Amino acid sequence: MRPFMDQDFLLHTETARHLYHTYAAGQPIIDYHCHLSPKEIAEDKRYNNITEVWLYGDHYKWRAMRSCGVSEKFITGDASDYEKFRAYCQCMPKLIGNPLYHWSHLELRRFFDCDLTLNEENCDAIWKMTAEKLADPQMSARHLIVNSGVQMVGTTDDPADSLEYHKQLQNEGFATLVAPSFRPDKGLAIGKKGIKAYIAALGEANGVEITDYETLLEAYRVSLDRFQALGCRAADHALDNFRFVTPDEFHAKEIFSRALESDGKKVEPEEAALFVCQMLRFFGKEYARRGMVMQLHFGVYRNPNDRMLRQLGPDTGYDIIHGANNTAEFAKLLNYLDGCDGLPRTILYSLNGADNDAVATLCGAFTGNESGAPRVVQGSAWWFQDRLDGMRAQMRSFAGLASLGNFLGMLTDSRSFLSYPRHEYFRRILCDLIGDWVEGGEYPNDEAALAALVKGVCYQNAKAYFNL
Amino acid sequence: MRPFMDQDFLLHTETARHLYHTYAAGQPIIDYHCHLSPKEIAEDKRYNNITEVWLYGDHYKWRAMRSCGVSEKFITGDASDYEKFRAYCQCMPKLIGNPLYHWSHLELRRFFDCDLTLNEENCDAIWKMTAEKLADPQMSARHLIVNSGVQMVGTTDDPADSLEYHKQLQNEGFATLVAPSFRPDKGLAIGKKGIKAYIAALGEANGVEITDYETLLEAYRVSLDRFQALGCRAADHALDNFRFVTPDEFHAKEIFSRALESDGKKVEPEEAALFVCQMLRFFGKEYARRGMVMQLHFGVYRNPNDRMLRQLGPDTGYDIIHGANNTAEFAKLLNYLDGCDGLPRTILYSLNGADNDAVATLCGAFTGNESGAPRVVQGSAWWFQDRLDGMRAQMRSFAGLASLGNFLGMLTDSRSFLSYPRHEYFRRILCDLIGDWVEGGEYPNDEAALAALVKGVCYQNAKAYFNL
Amino acid sequence: MRPFMDQDFLLHTETARHLYHTYAAGQPIIDYHCHLSPKEIAEDKRYNNITEVWLYGDHYKWRAMRSCGVSEKFITGDASDYEKFRAYCQCMPKLIGNPLYHWSHLELRRFFDCDLTLNEENCDAIWKMTAEKLADPQMSARHLIVNSGVQMVGTTDDPADSLEYHKQLQNEGFATLVAPSFRPDKGLAIGKKGIKAYIAALGEANGVEITDYETLLEAYRVSLDRFQALGCRAADHALDNFRFVTPDEFHAKEIFSRALESDGKKVEPEEAALFVCQMLRFFGKEYARRGMVMQLHFGVYRNPNDRMLRQLGPDTGYDIIHGANNTAEFAKLLNYLDGCDGLPRTILYSLNGADNDAVATLCGAFTGNESGAPRVVQGSAWWFQDRLDGMRAQMRSFAGLASLGNFLGMLTDSRSFLSYPRHEYFRRILCDLIGDWVEGGEYPNDEAALAALVKGVCYQNAKAYFNL
Repeated sequence: MRPFMDQDFLLHTETARHLYHTYAAGQPIIDYHCHLSPKEIAEDKRYNNITEVWLYGDHYKWRAMRSCGVSEKFITGDASDYEKFRAYCQCMPKLIGNPLYHWSHLELRRFFDCDLTLNEENCDAIWKMTAEKLADPQMSARHLIVNSGVQMVGTTDDPADSLEYHKQLQNEGFATLVAPSFRPDKGLAIGKKGIKAYIAALGEANGVEITDYETLLEAYRVSLDRFQALGCRAADHALDNFRFVTPDEFHAKEIFSRALESDGKKVEPEEAALFVCQMLRFFGKEYARRGMVMQLHFGVYRNPNDRMLRQLGPDTGYDIIHGANNTAEFAKLLNYLDGCDGLPRTILYSLNGADNDAVATLCGAFTGNESGAPRVVQGSAWWFQDRLDGMRAQMRSFAGLASLGNFLGMLTDSRSFLSYPRHEYFRRILCDLIGDWVEGGEYPNDEAALAALVKGVCYQNAKAYFNL
Repeated sequence: MRPFMDQDFLLHTETARHLYHTYAAGQPIIDYHCHLSPKEIAEDKRYNNITEVWLYGDHYKWRAMRSCGVSEKFITGDASDYEKFRAYCQCMPKLIGNPLYHWSHLELRRFFDCDLTLNEENCDAIWKMTAEKLADPQMSARHLIVNSGVQMVGTTDDPADSLEYHKQLQNEGFATLVAPSFRPDKGLAIGKKGIKAYIAALGEANGVEITDYETLLEAYRVSLDRFQALGCRAADHALDNFRFVTPDEFHAKEIFSRALESDGKKVEPEEAALFVCQMLRFFGKEYARRGMVMQLHFGVYRNPNDRMLRQLGPDTGYDIIHGANNTAEFAKLLNYLDGCDGLPRTILYSLNGADNDAVATLCGAFTGNESGAPRVVQGSAWWFQDRLDGMRAQMRSFAGLASLGNFLGMLTDSRSFLSYPRHEYFRRILCDLIGDWVEGGEYPNDEAALAALVKGVCYQNAKAYFNL
Repeated sequence: MRPFMDQDFLLHTETARHLYHTYAAGQPIIDYHCHLSPKEIAEDKRYNNITEVWLYGDHYKWRAMRSCGVSEKFITGDASDYEKFRAYCQCMPKLIGNPLYHWSHLELRRFFDCDLTLNEENCDAIWKMTAEKLADPQMSARHLIVNSGVQMVGTTDDPADSLEYHKQLQNEGFATLVAPSFRPDKGLAIGKKGIKAYIAALGEANGVEITDYETLLEAYRVSLDRFQALGCRAADHALDNFRFVTPDEFHAKEIFSRALESDGKKVEPEEAALFVCQMLRFFGKEYARRGMVMQLHFGVYRNPNDRMLRQLGPDTGYDIIHGANNTAEFAKLLNYLDGCDGLPRTILYSLNGADNDAVATLCGAFTGNESGAPRVVQGSAWWFQDRLDGMRAQMRSFAGLASLGNFLGMLTDSRSFLSYPRHEYFRRILCDLIGDWVEGGEYPNDEAALAALVKGVCYQNAKAYFNL
């Protein structure tokens, strides 16, 4: 029996251990897509207790606690911080096989030097020990980032954002590059109430009075300039239930005007879909000519529970996998952009593991990046797939259908400053996978080739892809 | 090489063996969803030969024999019982990797103390030995149930059923609780010929003259009272090709009247779908207030072969997996019920393993069961998924995306009194999975936590969920 | 650590090694579906260098190179043969976990007696060595086939084909049966420009002036006669985005006439779908009465990249998996044929591994082959699935849901004379899978049963199914 989560955690072969400790562990981290708060980084946020760190904003943990039947009082309700942590500890033993089990214990080990098991019995000891440790200035947001070896953080920001905290961090010369990522989802929700106010804010933030489609594009161009001036490398689109409708500028202009006038009320779903595709054409062209990467996230069914949406708002642990595969729609989109004004480097993320093979083959249909790296690639296993089985399956699929040697590796997609051990988790799984292939006689034990593979996937491929 | 199906069958680690033999094997069985005949239990059915037990009604075996090219004569045709058994024996060696291979041998071992391999050579010996053994009164239906350690059996019954055999068993004080489960599929098939006669029978069985929607509900309420008086804990709906249509009582009433008048003829598919959703609202509310569990079965394409449907009828081994994922429709249904008159505890079963992840995440969007257990859960791998790979995949998915510690465990879904070793099969797979995690260093070797996990999944979670 | 690709490659257990070397390795090859050029066989094609063999026509390798960011110049462009091979060698180390990694090394080992690793360092040595070896007359197309132990090759041919090379090979008494397979896709694309010219060619090739639906059928019947006279056993249909529309001969006749007059222009998609189904009815009946096997290939999204389609044409490595499952449409088709004029023996291939379970169960709904073998079967893991993980998953699914003992085994689906080691690859995976089951105690160590299983899947089942 192997000890629980020791230094060789998840490394089942000699080769895996060698590769991980020699080539993977020490690589810097490029966390090119996450949801960290730039404000909290700028303010160098501190925490009073483990509940503030772990349970104030992590909808993964909320979901898991609900799956264990915990009352909302102890999740997002008015229970005390201690009671909430206790409730989480009580759930832990039931979460065997869940990534939270490993993430939580990795975080205890790496940030708190604590190898106690999370359960009711150890609750008080861990509560006390973590509170003491959190008083250490080394546990501030910025120290957590720097001490984790993070070279670049890609936050997720609205085109209407002032980016003031990014500016502050740049001015202060913070060691880690905190680059904004351009996420224009709000402005694409043309059929939703509130679009008028949003467009006004977008105009104001970018010094453009938006009165029609032309001024809308102008505002976005200014915004992209602002983003790029602060190091932005990537855009990001949530295309939950995407359907490709051939863009039509004439029609799109008219739809946009109508949306502004009626605050979204007089826009039919079909029209909203056309507008999204028209804007993706515009954005795709901009990203391509600016050398930005376009990320597309799909396979999600957001906010399926109306009651809890009203009670807690979005992003609170209720979103689910949208199981119906629609990679064909993305094939049409990429084809259109490619044949039109330009298809930028693109990363595809589906929330549904059953889509892995289809997405991996889609990447291979749109290659031809002059830089010598692939143009369209599959992102690492995302969100619900970001677990041991999910990551293994995604990498095996991508290896079998595309080229693992060109894979861009891990990102946290997280709101927490303690989430960097997810890179460690990924790297262990990667090295274990490669170790299995090598020790099983399926790949030669060629030190140089293996070192290049491991370093590439952990760090260098992303570095090159994002021009870092 | 490990011996063929010895006491440590499927238990690959020391931990797995320890957990299975110490904590899993001895747990009672709660078989909360099956298709046993209450009549056969009440009459304490006996069997003359192995063909009567194995091949008279088991469409799993029929399908397997057809997959081996066996002529229908030897499956459902006029061949002798011996010839049919011989044909089954001839197929067996080809069924490597098929659950029938394991189930059949487990049944031989557990009920007949016979460890011969099923093949043509051993056919006669097994035929003779099983016939002798079946003469033993301990091989009657009731003895098979009790000797298998079954605490509760949930049969599947129509709201128009008299439940006379359930009454008889209750009156006689049969040791195992044989509780009816409420399955109102026939009454929901509003667009099908025969609906008029069915509704008349439903009224008669429940002492209500059904003339309209109001009296229909009244009859169902009486039926639910009757079911509950006999221990009913659960309802069950086959929603094969389900599409959510927002209920509309006014319209539903009119559709129902039209269906009665035209015996289903004048009901459009869209109207039938609306009626089903309206009724699910009614049933959901009833189940919730009565504390009953609602089971939803989907992902099935029933009766794809018209010729064989005409020849043999439904449920004869021709149904297939409906591959197109439609979990989104169930999300809409659960959301509607939750926001409306009440969402009962609900178990979701998809026949398609590719739906596992989507279904597991759907459960997490509708939690909040005041009892301290999750409200919506994924059922154990169902029917075609109810094999080694299918159960492993479903449990790994549920562990990674929900909480394995709250999983309700196994059920046979079977028509056979010899099917209880499927619980043993499941428990071995469960313990093996946990053993792998513990011995691989992915979960602590914590005896108390492991014992709680194993006993919970094998028995106690279902006991609590069904208020037993 | 196991050596890289030695004689026990992929064989992890003693049983696997025994079964492979004793029963699998020596079986003849029936390659019942491939895309070899009959002309190249007839002309006994020779090669000057490894690029001609490997990179002139293999879109699998083109796709992989593109996935590694290689410029089109070195793939299908004007780079020299040596430069192209060098580019391929440079990619190889990145293709860990990709079937091309194994196929390429297997081909080097089996045809060139070379166990060098493919990488930049060994590029020149391999380039030189393979060129020398290719000068050997034993490296001609015919020798490659015969020396690989191939008993039958099923090429893929258009009904308008003269089949002159098949005739030549038959007249010359070539040791391997090179049988044409009937693939009428072009004539079914009724709504595509060029249909008029194609139908004229079809008529001419078959000595029938096609003026209407009746003469169309006559031409196809003549063509089928011609195919069968040269050993044809199978037909093949690419039903990429198939939707079942109930056939209607009256309407189909009119559509066909209109298609001829307008050269496809005046045919609506719905009409084209109806015509396809009408023709499948006709073909199904013909195949059934002639004892031919019908192969259906689906789950493909062809030519998603318009720009590259214009530049390189179809079948150049741009096709992708169509992820949306539509097995239900095939269920309707098989049901229609079965209830109508006859459902021939049928092999189903989906390009999407996520469809495996649904397809395996579909087979079981249409059995009843009087010959004692199953009628509808799932083909071996196809194209993108034709990798280690894909083949394992497909076999485990088919074993669990149908009958592995009746599986028809491998085919290359290849354009290359060096692709026969894919049969070896498959056989190793098969024996390894069986070895795991036997050594794990899940199947008895019964030499006779295991030998029958292995020989059946590798050779005898296909031999019987195709009446060879």
